[in-house]
Amino acid sequence: MKKICLLGATGSIGDSTLGVLEQHPSEFSLHSIAAHSNWEKILQIARTRKVAKVCMFDEAAAMQLKKAAPEIEVLSGLDGLVEISCDPIVDVIVNGLVGAVGCLPTMKAVECGKTVALANKETMVMAGPVIQEALDRNPKASIVPVDSEHNAIFQCLSGRPVSEVENILLTASGGPFRELPKDRFAHITVAEALKHPTWSMGRKITIDSASMMNKGLEVIEAHFLFRVPYDQINVVVHPKSIIHSMVQFRDGSLMAQLGVPDMKVPIQCALTWPERKTLKTGRLDLAQIGQLQFFAPDFERFPCLQLAYDAGRMGGTAPAVLNAANEVLVAAFLDEQIGFLDIPRGLEFCLGTVAGNQAPLTLQAALDADKQARELASNYILRKQGRV
Amino acid sequence: MKKICLLGATGSIGDSTLGVLEQHPSEFSLHSIAAHSNWEKILQIARTRKVAKVCMFDEAAAMQLKKAAPEIEVLSGLDGLVEISCDPIVDVIVNGLVGAVGCLPTMKAVECGKTVALANKETMVMAGPVIQEALDRNPKASIVPVDSEHNAIFQCLSGRPVSEVENILLTASGGPFRELPKDRFAHITVAEALKHPTWSMGRKITIDSASMMNKGLEVIEAHFLFRVPYDQINVVVHPKSIIHSMVQFRDGSLMAQLGVPDMKVPIQCALTWPERKTLKTGRLDLAQIGQLQFFAPDFERFPCLQLAYDAGRMGGTAPAVLNAANEVLVAAFLDEQIGFLDIPRGLEFCLGTVAGNQAPLTLQAALDADKQARELASNYILRKQGRV
Repeated sequence: MKKICLLGATGSIGDSTLGVLEQHPSEFSLHSIAAHSNWEKILQIARTRKVAKVCMFDEAAAMQLKKAAPEIEVLSGLDGLVEISCDPIVDVIVNGLVGAVGCLPTMKAVECGKTVALANKETMVMAGPVIQEALDRNPKASIVPVDSEHNAIFQCLSGRPVSEVENILLTASGGPFRELPKDRFAHITVAEALKHPTWSMGRKITIDSASMMNKGLEVIEAHFLFRVPYDQINVVVHPKSIIHSMVQFRDGSLMAQLGVPDMKVPIQCALTWPERKTLKTGRLDLAQIGQLQFFAPDFERFPCLQLAYDAGRMGGTAPAVLNAANEVLVAAFLDEQIGFLDIPRGLEFCLGTVAGNQAPLTLQAALDADKQARELASNYILRKQGRV
Repeated sequence: MKKICLLGATGSIGDSTLGVLEQHPSEFSLHSIAAHSNWEKILQIARTRKVAKVCMFDEAAAMQLKKAAPEIEVLSGLDGLVEISCDPIVDVIVNGLVGAVGCLPTMKAVECGKTVALANKETMVMAGPVIQEALDRNPKASIVPVDSEHNAIFQCLSGRPVSEVENILLTASGGPFRELPKDRFAHITVAEALKHPTWSMGRKITIDSASMMNKGLEVIEAHFLFRVPYDQINVVVHPKSIIHSMVQFRDGSLMAQLGVPDMKVPIQCALTWPERKTLKTGRLDLAQIGQLQFFAPDFERFPCLQLAYDAGRMGGTAPAVLNAANEVLVAAFLDEQIGFLDIPRGLEFCLGTVAGNQAPLTLQAALDADKQARELASNYILRKQGRV
């Protein structure tokens, strides 16, 4: 029986992971769980699923959990996350943490030779080269990507060497502004940007989808996960997102993975690979779907996508800066402090500060760059508002 | 260096195979070639490619070739085909023969532990169970299908066990009569049936495409090649045929193989698998293609597709009867001796004769059934014409 450690148990990846485990009670057992601060939900999961260890990132929440359930072993903080990720009894870590806090547990789990089912985007965007080195030093360890695009690529590759890959094709929904006239972009309102044509998601990720920055960050992730140069990573707009992504091989074959939008599919793939086990979820009916459409991405309409390629090619701390600055700028847009086009403008300003940074990346340098970029972006926003 | 034996060297599979070999002169050498009767073309290939042995199926053509090129070792007839297919020096047999004559060389090659790149449809339709048994007895042997649908399925499976497969999805162009009103089918002319919307192919296969019998025969082939029950083989109409076929796995993932219509892709796949080597051919540009459409197949409009499922489920000699009777009926339709709807009617008549036939299939029984079905179909045609 595989023993699972679930980081981010109270979020959507947590929910989906629990859904997968429920379908395979004799295959997996949930050994440990972690979350930021929602200790009530953690307590409920811990009791229902008979979890051995829990970690609350927030110290106050950890205290409250200890008081409410003295029978449960409660760890806390980043140290706690690392401890449960390196627990010798655990086989697979599902990393569904949000933000930079997800990097260190991934790295430590890799150093302990674990399989990491990785849903934490920041790990590869901020610290890609650091994680690659850790993987090279620990051949027993592996990372299986869990977001639908990268998991699709992982399935299309099926362990094939990069030398056989001509191009990775990331599919993108294109967001709500795919056909908006270019001169209207400066006047996009928060309400318009939050109206995603296909899904309801969190506010931040919906804005990233509208600016196509989500796809830009995925390009960087794909580069580090699959070790494919940026010139061989392309984006194709595919509004229905039925095809989750594709790989063009050098022999002319293009392999694609398709499916319903259910995170249980890639999560289970990561837990059972190289096997495929039965999963109760929807099945596509292509005849009912009727048609799939494809468009070339418009880099002029979506400068964030271009900026992501640029930051990726700059390397070093540039992707970490891009990611952190984007978070701050998107929050400011959601607060109506800046306009939609100030997001790429602010990113360009922040990326300017890392030009020429050629030192080999360390995790600390990436975390420092993240912090610094947040300050820079905040200054940019204040300046935009005429407050400095 | 892999040594290749190419059966059907003068046909379209032959041309494509030679095109693949040309691109990899240091990987493959062409050891032997065979064809029906076009000895001039065989001679030209043999001299250009420095082939060691040739076989002309037709004895007269073999004599002429011997006279014209005394320096070349010339074999003839079915014995000759079998001899070059079992040559100990040969690694891969590309079987691009047309018709029932392709069965025995495939079986003998399997019995000698060879890899067979199989483009001869009749092998699996007529003698599927016989070939399966031969494969089971010779674990070193393998068959890699070369037509684009089955090769796509082969790539999607990538060696996975059948237990992981929920459904095989064969894509079908749907032919020129996809939207024709049902009451017009009785009046379809030869000229209308030969107007395929997408490709120019041979006359017989174009009619099979118009009646969807080509897809029916592929359903039977898929059943025997991949050992998947008929209930788990579905057809989806996809007019542009960009997706060559798909596999729905039990974990919710649907894998698809896409590509330009170039037989060099599946042929090279069969020659180099499990490696993928560089192939110069077109690449898909999905943004330029714009959209892909899908429809459910209409079994009422296309009774031949239903009859193929029926014959497959009957088993035994029924698929051989279906295939042979169809050849005769299509030829009669092309000669304007019968109408378009007489093709399925004639098939139904011929299939009636095999009901209850439950003996385990032998190659001889399949070949006998083929012969008998041709006679039955001819009688049906004469009767239709009021000549008996």
